[in-house]
Amino acid sequence: MAEQYNFGVIGLGGRGHGNLMEFLKADGVRVAAVCDQYADRVKAAADSVEKEYGYRPTEYTDYKALLARDDIGAVLVFTTWITHSRIALDCMLAGKHVAVEVGGSASVEECWQLVRTSESTGKFCMLLENCCYDRYEMALFNMKQLGLFGEVVHCQGAYQHDLRDEILHGRENRHGRLFNFMNRNGELYPTHQFGPICKLLGINRGNRIVSLVSMASPARGLNAYARKQHPDGYDLEDYKFTEGDVVTTMLKCAHGETILLTHECTLPRPYSRGYRIDGTKGAYTEDDNQIYFDGVSPHEQWEPVLPYIEKYEHPLWKEYFVKGVHGGHGGMDFLVLSAFAEAAMNNVAPPIDVYDTAVWMCVTALSEQSIAMGSHPVPVPDFTNGLWIDREPYRRGRYCLEEVCTEFYDVN
Amino acid sequence: MAEQYNFGVIGLGGRGHGNLMEFLKADGVRVAAVCDQYADRVKAAADSVEKEYGYRPTEYTDYKALLARDDIGAVLVFTTWITHSRIALDCMLAGKHVAVEVGGSASVEECWQLVRTSESTGKFCMLLENCCYDRYEMALFNMKQLGLFGEVVHCQGAYQHDLRDEILHGRENRHGRLFNFMNRNGELYPTHQFGPICKLLGINRGNRIVSLVSMASPARGLNAYARKQHPDGYDLEDYKFTEGDVVTTMLKCAHGETILLTHECTLPRPYSRGYRIDGTKGAYTEDDNQIYFDGVSPHEQWEPVLPYIEKYEHPLWKEYFVKGVHGGHGGMDFLVLSAFAEAAMNNVAPPIDVYDTAVWMCVTALSEQSIAMGSHPVPVPDFTNGLWIDREPYRRGRYCLEEVCTEFYDVN
Repeated sequence: MAEQYNFGVIGLGGRGHGNLMEFLKADGVRVAAVCDQYADRVKAAADSVEKEYGYRPTEYTDYKALLARDDIGAVLVFTTWITHSRIALDCMLAGKHVAVEVGGSASVEECWQLVRTSESTGKFCMLLENCCYDRYEMALFNMKQLGLFGEVVHCQGAYQHDLRDEILHGRENRHGRLFNFMNRNGELYPTHQFGPICKLLGINRGNRIVSLVSMASPARGLNAYARKQHPDGYDLEDYKFTEGDVVTTMLKCAHGETILLTHECTLPRPYSRGYRIDGTKGAYTEDDNQIYFDGVSPHEQWEPVLPYIEKYEHPLWKEYFVKGVHGGHGGMDFLVLSAFAEAAMNNVAPPIDVYDTAVWMCVTALSEQSIAMGSHPVPVPDFTNGLWIDREPYRRGRYCLEEVCTEFYDVN
Repeated sequence: MAEQYNFGVIGLGGRGHGNLMEFLKADGVRVAAVCDQYADRVKAAADSVEKEYGYRPTEYTDYKALLARDDIGAVLVFTTWITHSRIALDCMLAGKHVAVEVGGSASVEECWQLVRTSESTGKFCMLLENCCYDRYEMALFNMKQLGLFGEVVHCQGAYQHDLRDEILHGRENRHGRLFNFMNRNGELYPTHQFGPICKLLGINRGNRIVSLVSMASPARGLNAYARKQHPDGYDLEDYKFTEGDVVTTMLKCAHGETILLTHECTLPRPYSRGYRIDGTKGAYTEDDNQIYFDGVSPHEQWEPVLPYIEKYEHPLWKEYFVKGVHGGHGGMDFLVLSAFAEAAMNNVAPPIDVYDTAVWMCVTALSEQSIAMGSHPVPVPDFTNGLWIDREPYRRGRYCLEEVCTEFYDVN
């Protein structure tokens, strides 16, 4: 590993700027270049780095100029959902490993392009699915590995996040989300819970997703909200949004397991990723954070999950608590960014690879197809072209998400 | 209304016997005849009636003999799921109104037969969906009618009931459920939450269900349970059950609303009907019984629902609390049985009519079809043949489920 490794960061809106500053806290990381189409964002980012770290990254408004640099080994992309993939392709073609912020795909071909380009260039593409590194997700994964749930036959997840204000004012805020809600109808943001569920069910390593089917409710939430917030009128008040308020998706695995995803960002309700695990020996539900183990929990009574989280704490989190949890989203942002930094600097496969990235992202495009065809089931591609049958769990480094590899941790 | 009205009861297993005794508490009800294929059950039921009410209903083991009687105006059917419909048809053809205990259909044609026979005989067929009369469901319906949820775009419901022991020992207990889990794969028991949701969304009265699609997880729960409970072996231990442990169904309404149903009876988890209402102004979730109203509840925080239930108590329940709640399932059994008694004795349409019965029951057969075709969407018939467009809400009597008709109640 080089003592300092040069990274580039593309996309410096609120999320990009925040992630940049968090990423810089990882050992050995140097951000040599920052880029955004808006010069004010680039300057703000360079200012922040200079103030905090005493050096100023080169400023770009054209990401291709950034990619032309030979001294940058890997790039992080925090642009809009629709530009993630094409920039990621360019990164790999320029000889750089790439990490992309979460988001869905616009087409299935886009996912195949990522796979083919990663395979042909030997550069990796890692979706920065921070929720894979959430404390609860990791402890629950640990419990599943230890057999506490028995055989898991069904999981649920959701992105239930009241984003009405953010979506509606996307133009003023230069935020890309709005235009997706104005024009598309599908599971726009699947990966927050689908990522951890795929890891739990061994997707791409002995299991795979074979098909999905989606259904969308009417789109009423944004209009109702616009009328309430802007009683004097707002130009989107009567806009016919295409994105249904509630989009539900059912997915089927090669070994029969089912997954249910819910996308709901335009109705009033408290945030929840609606995680749920149903096994032959136990069940977990994120709503009210409860768990139930057959013959252990009082009959027909949920138990609070926290004592179980503490008992089966993932060693990565034990270590993290000792070193000091920091950064966004309860600390998980730093972990996923560190996972990328470690893989890039060691030039080894990341814990979330291009096959994971492709399967997780493709749900969006496929759900749009299914809805467009009246909730017709659609096949989910095998992006590994058959390799999933024999692929062993990933066991490399402390950030691995397949097995609990205790040997990597100082704390146990 | 006759001072005493003669009813017959067919099907006297645990549920039938219990419902018989509860039904007899309704004003004006006389059960003149009881029937079951097992003579011991018939005798036990006649004994109970005689002990409690001083008269002995005639005992039958052949339901057709019971139906031949001229002095019986209406019949309640509590037999197995698969026999509900054919007995109900015979009841109507014999000139009697009929109530059937809840359960799904085996075919769509069976539902059409109920509709055609009810229309041609002028006798009604009412599904005894007790959950429509649950205190919470009724208060939530009241809140929806008052506009508290805004426009409701999505609902969820479930039958999540750990019945592993009851199912597995169905033979010893002469319970029909087992054979359905051994042979079928679908949403076997949809109506407990689907009934109240259909009433909430105005199904058959200005709205209708247009299609559904189902997906089933593997069947693992019963085998795992059999092995755990019978370590010395049990003949069903390795039986390849067909019914998936978790069956998920998405339904689409004519006005775009979506409904999600979950059937889960063979895994360990506390009971829940998973009721959920998603509207433009608020949301309700049965899990942990929480509610959220936009701009009313603290930002991003659920509130306990009970104070709202009390505030918006349905007048039927206000009255019921004054008179004294009694009977099974928190009192709702008595209400649905009383609703049937009142309709029969007054010879008027019941609050749950044959169109409701047909739509609610058909979900089972259709979900089996969808699963058999790899989660292909299937159309849901319009059992009203177009009448749903113009049908006004039902407003007859205190048990109506369409509007809150306060004039019928003593208490307000």
